[in-house]
Amino acid sequence: MGQVAWKGLFLSFFDYKTEKYVIAKNKKVGILFRIVQLSILAYLVGWVFVVKKGYQDTDTSIQSSVITKLKGVAYTNTTELGPRLWDVVDYVIPPQGENVFFVVTNLIVTPNQRQEKCRESFGITDAVCSKNTDCPEGEPVIAGNGVKTGRCLKSGAVNTTGMCEIFAWCPLEKRQKPKIPVLGKAENFTVYIKNSIRFPKFNFSKANILNTEDDSFLKTCRYSKENHYCPIFHLGKIVSWSGNNFQELAMEGGVIGIQIEWDCNLDRDASECHPQYSFTRLDNKFTEKSVSSGYNFRYAKYYRDANGTDYRTLIKAYGIRFDIMVNGKAGKFNIIPTIINIGSGLALMGVGAFICDLVLLYFIKKSNFYRDKKFEEVK
Amino acid sequence: MGQVAWKGLFLSFFDYKTEKYVIAKNKKVGILFRIVQLSILAYLVGWVFVVKKGYQDTDTSIQSSVITKLKGVAYTNTTELGPRLWDVVDYVIPPQGENVFFVVTNLIVTPNQRQEKCRESFGITDAVCSKNTDCPEGEPVIAGNGVKTGRCLKSGAVNTTGMCEIFAWCPLEKRQKPKIPVLGKAENFTVYIKNSIRFPKFNFSKANILNTEDDSFLKTCRYSKENHYCPIFHLGKIVSWSGNNFQELAMEGGVIGIQIEWDCNLDRDASECHPQYSFTRLDNKFTEKSVSSGYNFRYAKYYRDANGTDYRTLIKAYGIRFDIMVNGKAGKFNIIPTIINIGSGLALMGVGAFICDLVLLYFIKKSNFYRDKKFEEVK
Amino acid sequence: MGQVAWKGLFLSFFDYKTEKYVIAKNKKVGILFRIVQLSILAYLVGWVFVVKKGYQDTDTSIQSSVITKLKGVAYTNTTELGPRLWDVVDYVIPPQGENVFFVVTNLIVTPNQRQEKCRESFGITDAVCSKNTDCPEGEPVIAGNGVKTGRCLKSGAVNTTGMCEIFAWCPLEKRQKPKIPVLGKAENFTVYIKNSIRFPKFNFSKANILNTEDDSFLKTCRYSKENHYCPIFHLGKIVSWSGNNFQELAMEGGVIGIQIEWDCNLDRDASECHPQYSFTRLDNKFTEKSVSSGYNFRYAKYYRDANGTDYRTLIKAYGIRFDIMVNGKAGKFNIIPTIINIGSGLALMGVGAFICDLVLLYFIKKSNFYRDKKFEEVK
Repeated sequence: MGQVAWKGLFLSFFDYKTEKYVIAKNKKVGILFRIVQLSILAYLVGWVFVVKKGYQDTDTSIQSSVITKLKGVAYTNTTELGPRLWDVVDYVIPPQGENVFFVVTNLIVTPNQRQEKCRESFGITDAVCSKNTDCPEGEPVIAGNGVKTGRCLKSGAVNTTGMCEIFAWCPLEKRQKPKIPVLGKAENFTVYIKNSIRFPKFNFSKANILNTEDDSFLKTCRYSKENHYCPIFHLGKIVSWSGNNFQELAMEGGVIGIQIEWDCNLDRDASECHPQYSFTRLDNKFTEKSVSSGYNFRYAKYYRDANGTDYRTLIKAYGIRFDIMVNGKAGKFNIIPTIINIGSGLALMGVGAFICDLVLLYFIKKSNFYRDKKFEEVK
Repeated sequence: MGQVAWKGLFLSFFDYKTEKYVIAKNKKVGILFRIVQLSILAYLVGWVFVVKKGYQDTDTSIQSSVITKLKGVAYTNTTELGPRLWDVVDYVIPPQGENVFFVVTNLIVTPNQRQEKCRESFGITDAVCSKNTDCPEGEPVIAGNGVKTGRCLKSGAVNTTGMCEIFAWCPLEKRQKPKIPVLGKAENFTVYIKNSIRFPKFNFSKANILNTEDDSFLKTCRYSKENHYCPIFHLGKIVSWSGNNFQELAMEGGVIGIQIEWDCNLDRDASECHPQYSFTRLDNKFTEKSVSSGYNFRYAKYYRDANGTDYRTLIKAYGIRFDIMVNGKAGKFNIIPTIINIGSGLALMGVGAFICDLVLLYFIKKSNFYRDKKFEEVK
Repeated sequence: MGQVAWKGLFLSFFDYKTEKYVIAKNKKVGILFRIVQLSILAYLVGWVFVVKKGYQDTDTSIQSSVITKLKGVAYTNTTELGPRLWDVVDYVIPPQGENVFFVVTNLIVTPNQRQEKCRESFGITDAVCSKNTDCPEGEPVIAGNGVKTGRCLKSGAVNTTGMCEIFAWCPLEKRQKPKIPVLGKAENFTVYIKNSIRFPKFNFSKANILNTEDDSFLKTCRYSKENHYCPIFHLGKIVSWSGNNFQELAMEGGVIGIQIEWDCNLDRDASECHPQYSFTRLDNKFTEKSVSSGYNFRYAKYYRDANGTDYRTLIKAYGIRFDIMVNGKAGKFNIIPTIINIGSGLALMGVGAFICDLVLLYFIKKSNFYRDKKFEEVK
């Protein structure tokens, strides 16, 4: 090939080649095609752009910091503990004020436990015995509280069954818990929740606290649907918003989730990016009547007496665990996702043509005629 | 233009325009095209719809609540501690029963530490001294246990090197840990893991516990591959499932991850949505022989004597930290992702045509002929 | 239809049908089309493949385990506490060494609190009284420290106002905190952060610690931009990297986030997958002057005296909470995403044709001519 041929090839490279179309004067298929086109356009504009904000670049890797602080005191006067005042330090575990905190609402206290020998609790099947050899020394009681000492303790006559003696923290905990929650007054406690968030991609920060000069606002306000920038929550209300009754929950314990949702459209003003709170019970209710209901755990305070012997106060605490979960995403206009979404939407148009072609070529009366016109046989 | 012309334009708007095709009677390219079409169809049906369930709307923002409770007692009799019974309150840290818990398996106890003066431990290079001026008063010992008091304590002759005297919690901790894990019996402890989940988008809740009337099932069962609805796990088995030996791990400590995976197809019955457990060791094993192996931490119990002076028992606890991680996603049929996926799949068909055109127009013998037929020159 | 007809139909099934194109010898539109094609190609290669690594299958479900250990001692000598040495066990809460830890930097200690009667703090408006009936017995003081006993305590003459007597943990905490942080020396403490990660999909594990034989490296090194495989961080430097001043932060407390980012390209060598650290302050600074600034919490140490009465030391701890957050993703070549991305990219080409058609048929001089050629009327 000579120079001219090369030049021609180069020029033809810039010839625009466009598909040849056949106009099928069939109004039915034409209207169908326009409807399909319109649907795709509606989907593109309505769903992809308006609802899903497809023109935005999004950041879902929210950085969040939660600080919580409880307030409230309660006075109890039980036969076991005597008059007792409970303040935050006594009833919140752990004390650090992180995003998970537990409020004691009911408790069984077993004071002055020492490492000694005593009788295993009734009702533990592995410790039922009729003679000393039923309690081999050193064997731990299955689902029990200590190791067997080798003695079988009987309360009455020789032939009755007894319970093994065990080496354990004695006296053992009583199995009975108070009929009404000891710290039912916790319903009126309040919790201050400070949540600061940051979207690193857009370098945008915000907190759930109104940046106000008015200090007294933060001291007196209470969160409600109308007052959603007040970060102080009434515990009883949190529980009732989650669809539960505080006094019922206080008896057995439970887990309440506090979800904070940040859905920020950074194309608008920063002041329009609000936290949305929602409250749910996280431990399923349907297990309420089974053995696995509620939430409780045991902990102890360890003391040492003048002789250097350790003893402890065992506390079985029932209560409500609050889990604060922060989610969020932020979006801001960006040209790349915009183009990609427009492109994909237009590519979908091909689907409309595909469907209408099917109809035109196979499902209408004159389809044979159109097929001949659409497909040009090469002789 | 008159009214007629406008009417014509309006009617022509509903004319269906369809692409004109040229039939190339080339069987090779034809078969290639059908193969490509078939592949795309297979990908669409097999991968997008069957494997990836592209016809479903998915929710990955799982809400999860984990409650754990350990059971088991162990009796130890060491020269340092004497006879001692360990129950849950003694060996689980923290006690709250959350998704991360630590079981003590080995420990070094240093009782009766008081704020006093004593000799720094041997082996700490910063505290080696030959005269008092090597120990400037008030300077903290680097990587040591206290602040120097200004005195250099020598054990023997005048010219030997000694160690600085420090103000610290004395006596200092001994560096030797027990040769066999003190609480090796922790292998037989069990942990009850209650995991309730919720998919907020579909308002679907479930727990990893069989909703059974049979209370005794939950008291006696043990989790195994065959019995995967029992929420009670044997600690030794968890460790062995993760590919480790409990007694080895108990010596130095480690971190075990318990992953609970919920993959729920809500188009099927709720009862077919099962939790899948997997167990892995999270702290890398390859560092086993380096300084950084294992997992341990120090904590103290603080006491006050009759004179009001604080003293403490320092405990260096080696043990196994269990991290329970819950993941999940749920899917349910939704028309929008279905249409989008079908659309994208069909759009991919265009790629098949693109490839076959390339072959037809450039890579076969009669390509010149087909090029002339395909491209109609406008005169 | 006879056998021959069926055979013809079957054979025609393998005829390749290709779109008929019209060559529009219009250089402007041709060049426009080539530019659009080139842009899409550039986007596909540059953005989808090079930047976004669209040829890789990715795993974002990183499994991570963090172990932290602080080192450092500080000596303080305040009028209230006397000479006192602080070691790790004293100033780190909680002691477990997890991914969130708190370092005490300032504190208000209230020793020997007992459950007694005393006067409510001045400044609590709910407890201001002028006569005994202003203090109804048993009513908790709002935002106060105890329950009213029914007496109004006045310091001076009869007509002045006084404060209610309350039943509480007495003596109450003083409201004044030290002018300079008690534990300002915490700036020189160090923290050892061990982070092991695993990408389950690719079964790839790594840690942020150089797998070195050289133990002394891990004992003496300090993390810096140049030495990013040393896992020992100077607390003061962490705070200054986050753009804050340690001594200022130590006064009021705060929350610092330590982000560890693993972005691993597993098509390259494993040794090229490095952790990236970044440090930010998580509690927003803009609230610095409001009531809600800083981070502090109260906790107590409980003691029991010879008579069996409980008393406690209340500690209001100000300090810095460090949150270690681990993120990561790994990518590895996979044929399926590669094909999908190429396909989608080619499908985008149709958009180019769509735009150029618009220009050709409606926006240039000879558009009428081209329209007639492109659309073949069916007679």
